[in-house]
Amino acid sequence: MSKLTHFNEQGRAKMVDVSDKSETFRTAIAKSSIIVNELIHAQISEGSNKKGDVFAVAQVAAIMAAKQTSTIIPMCHPLPLTGIDVHFEWNIDAPTSHYEVSIKAEVKTKGLTGVEMEALTAASVAALTIYDMCKAAGKEMVIGPTYLQRKTGGKNGNFERIDS
Amino acid sequence: MSKLTHFNEQGRAKMVDVSDKSETFRTAIAKSSIIVNELIHAQISEGSNKKGDVFAVAQVAAIMAAKQTSTIIPMCHPLPLTGIDVHFEWNIDAPTSHYEVSIKAEVKTKGLTGVEMEALTAASVAALTIYDMCKAAGKEMVIGPTYLQRKTGGKNGNFERIDS
Amino acid sequence: MSKLTHFNEQGRAKMVDVSDKSETFRTAIAKSSIIVNELIHAQISEGSNKKGDVFAVAQVAAIMAAKQTSTIIPMCHPLPLTGIDVHFEWNIDAPTSHYEVSIKAEVKTKGLTGVEMEALTAASVAALTIYDMCKAAGKEMVIGPTYLQRKTGGKNGNFERIDS
Amino acid sequence: MSKLTHFNEQGRAKMVDVSDKSETFRTAIAKSSIIVNELIHAQISEGSNKKGDVFAVAQVAAIMAAKQTSTIIPMCHPLPLTGIDVHFEWNIDAPTSHYEVSIKAEVKTKGLTGVEMEALTAASVAALTIYDMCKAAGKEMVIGPTYLQRKTGGKNGNFERIDS
Amino acid sequence: MSKLTHFNEQGRAKMVDVSDKSETFRTAIAKSSIIVNELIHAQISEGSNKKGDVFAVAQVAAIMAAKQTSTIIPMCHPLPLTGIDVHFEWNIDAPTSHYEVSIKAEVKTKGLTGVEMEALTAASVAALTIYDMCKAAGKEMVIGPTYLQRKTGGKNGNFERIDS
Amino acid sequence: MSKLTHFNEQGRAKMVDVSDKSETFRTAIAKSSIIVNELIHAQISEGSNKKGDVFAVAQVAAIMAAKQTSTIIPMCHPLPLTGIDVHFEWNIDAPTSHYEVSIKAEVKTKGLTGVEMEALTAASVAALTIYDMCKAAGKEMVIGPTYLQRKTGGKNGNFERIDS
Repeated sequence: MSKLTHFNEQGRAKMVDVSDKSETFRTAIAKSSIIVNELIHAQISEGSNKKGDVFAVAQVAAIMAAKQTSTIIPMCHPLPLTGIDVHFEWNIDAPTSHYEVSIKAEVKTKGLTGVEMEALTAASVAALTIYDMCKAAGKEMVIGPTYLQRKTGGKNGNFERIDS
Repeated sequence: MSKLTHFNEQGRAKMVDVSDKSETFRTAIAKSSIIVNELIHAQISEGSNKKGDVFAVAQVAAIMAAKQTSTIIPMCHPLPLTGIDVHFEWNIDAPTSHYEVSIKAEVKTKGLTGVEMEALTAASVAALTIYDMCKAAGKEMVIGPTYLQRKTGGKNGNFERIDS
Repeated sequence: MSKLTHFNEQGRAKMVDVSDKSETFRTAIAKSSIIVNELIHAQISEGSNKKGDVFAVAQVAAIMAAKQTSTIIPMCHPLPLTGIDVHFEWNIDAPTSHYEVSIKAEVKTKGLTGVEMEALTAASVAALTIYDMCKAAGKEMVIGPTYLQRKTGGKNGNFERIDS
Repeated sequence: MSKLTHFNEQGRAKMVDVSDKSETFRTAIAKSSIIVNELIHAQISEGSNKKGDVFAVAQVAAIMAAKQTSTIIPMCHPLPLTGIDVHFEWNIDAPTSHYEVSIKAEVKTKGLTGVEMEALTAASVAALTIYDMCKAAGKEMVIGPTYLQRKTGGKNGNFERIDS
Repeated sequence: MSKLTHFNEQGRAKMVDVSDKSETFRTAIAKSSIIVNELIHAQISEGSNKKGDVFAVAQVAAIMAAKQTSTIIPMCHPLPLTGIDVHFEWNIDAPTSHYEVSIKAEVKTKGLTGVEMEALTAASVAALTIYDMCKAAGKEMVIGPTYLQRKTGGKNGNFERIDS
Repeated sequence: MSKLTHFNEQGRAKMVDVSDKSETFRTAIAKSSIIVNELIHAQISEGSNKKGDVFAVAQVAAIMAAKQTSTIIPMCHPLPLTGIDVHFEWNIDAPTSHYEVSIKAEVKTKGLTGVEMEALTAASVAALTIYDMCKAAGKEMVIGPTYLQRKTGGKNGNFERIDS
């Protein structure tokens, strides 16, 4: 069976040697989401329209986390990110009281390895930050699913998630 | 309508003043999960039984992230955590090729605020680390749902998630 | 002559021993400012009223920096901050084209040492973040003066700056 | 009116995409200062001449902060700095009891974006560190003005501050 | 056989639960050393006497590292350190060309766990910093032995190393 | 006498300007060790063979520390590391009750400066982590000697330690 690439011959984790890889332009888009209750939806919406913008804080947190990915995820290579952007969108079905924030994080670099983990970390931290700022109004929020939507660049080619 | 507590009178985010709160013993348990393919399941399982233990790396990452929560989540109070533990369990339905790692993170403190965010951050980072170490064998992994299972301590009392 | 307290008998810096101090409630307010040009004033103002809020980003940066003070300022004691808030105010004199953002950072703790440095660091980083986000429209911005406005708590009593 | 470049179409902050920029040699010089009282001047001077060197600590703090700029300033790109230096100079007018430390921070890189923020952060942190180490002898110290003196490199050309 | 305390029942690492421990005053002293060549000894000595003080930089690095111990050592509890001091001493035997810097780091806290790791980390980082600053004049320097000299406080009582 | 390169003309530390250096492939191997007692040897060995693997935690700590070297060692240049690996080996002489873990850390980069400090930091942190996880069973462990075994790449050529 093929072996996990992140382990050395002693069976212990290593940061994979990418010295031979070429520096190419790479992008990754990750998605996450958080389901909130009706009150939280109302509170966030009100703030987004003028002041008290929960998403503004989540955005900053996500961008700063993307830059810290290699210090959070142990075997991740440090990469000089060239661009990070995050988007929020409401996905609402009022009859069933479904209030969901859809989160999309996009990260770019010119580097030796891909930025999948940076995008996934940004999306996750955006969701966690929303949770933190709204938890006084209900702790039953649910984060995720969180997944990679797309990546481009690198030797192994592109990846595009097929939505089910 | 009640207002979000994390904003000041200018409508901008603040770290809520908890100077008046009492130091109490607090715990929180968060859960997450990651769905992997059959190959990744086989690779992780093989390693867990002897060497090349993916979960061992995820465990360390989760514990270190829990301690960094207040530097990752902007409005989180710094807390002197007194205990952190993480558990992994396989949830498998072979006929439908469902291979899922269930992640449970428990955090404890004696402090002025709860440790919900620390537990949620630990569980999220455990899942992200598993993704990172296995992504060479399939990038379609899905993380989450991630949620708070239980919290104890603090003025607002306990919280226990009702599983649906 | 009295000696600087931060040096040991070898004449090298130390983190002063505060083991004998009592944990008391402490606050500090620091002020800074940044002078911008007319265009930047217009751009920030437009954003503050709805979207693209420069101050929202500066606010988050200031709060996160306050929590990191003891990792930025070498001889600063680590403190479990209990509250951080930052305010922005325009101080404008249009005839002389004077556009100034006044920044006030307030930090609270229950701890062994004061939070002057945390407040000063927060105010400084707020100003630096505004500089960063506006520098494409003029690099001649000037930050400061930055100073301590007030502190309370601790053995040495309170401090209140006398405005000249 | 021209728009701030750091915001996306949702009006929220992003780390600007610099993937298309060229890697060039870049430098920036920032200046700050701190006004101290006569006693502090005497204490620092005595130490600078032999032991107990306040500036030596401020120097290390400034250099370490410059390297951390992209983790302190939210929308700053991470850059592999190639050189950092900091200088201190006394600017004294004894008759008016004016004791001022002039701080100059110079930062260099080969990278996609400029190092203005790194130089400004280094100069600010040098001043904050001096404040921290001397505050037992007087909390009325004033930091700044802090500003960019010069930058070179990059598409937009050089900048040189015109001293008033 | 007794088991390692840092592992849970799944055999994976945890941060040990110290919620039941009492907050007591604790100290630890660790020692390290670095053997340098004659040229490096001369260069450091010259600087220590006036300017270019290698030990001043190592001192700052050690103090900052002590405060970061729980982010560097995975299972270490975060502790609010109340005092950190580092001393350097030359141990020279000119006839055999033995030039050794003896390093002593002392750390104090009022907390739930001991500060052995903080003292050991401070001493190690002091030695590493000296290596870094002198390596242009000889890379054959040897760091250590590094060990705990003494600890006080805590349920398990004091420890004092018996010098051989 | 030749002067230390890390000081400016004011005699204070600087991060040396390497803007003129060429980006080359560089490697460094550092070694450290830790002497433990018989009980600790038995506990670690038991864990390494199946669960409770102390070395797995030390490995992760070492890799994460290598990536943080430029934030721990003040004058170190930030470098985009391309590979990190760590190995552990028992060196036992039972008759004399000598139980020693030999640690080897190897780091690679394509960069402007060498990775000696990254390798030395990784080896040191691996040893410190073993100390932390085993100290409940004996605090008399001794870390080191820690030294550079080999480096390749860069203008100054290779270095290979001659074992005595």
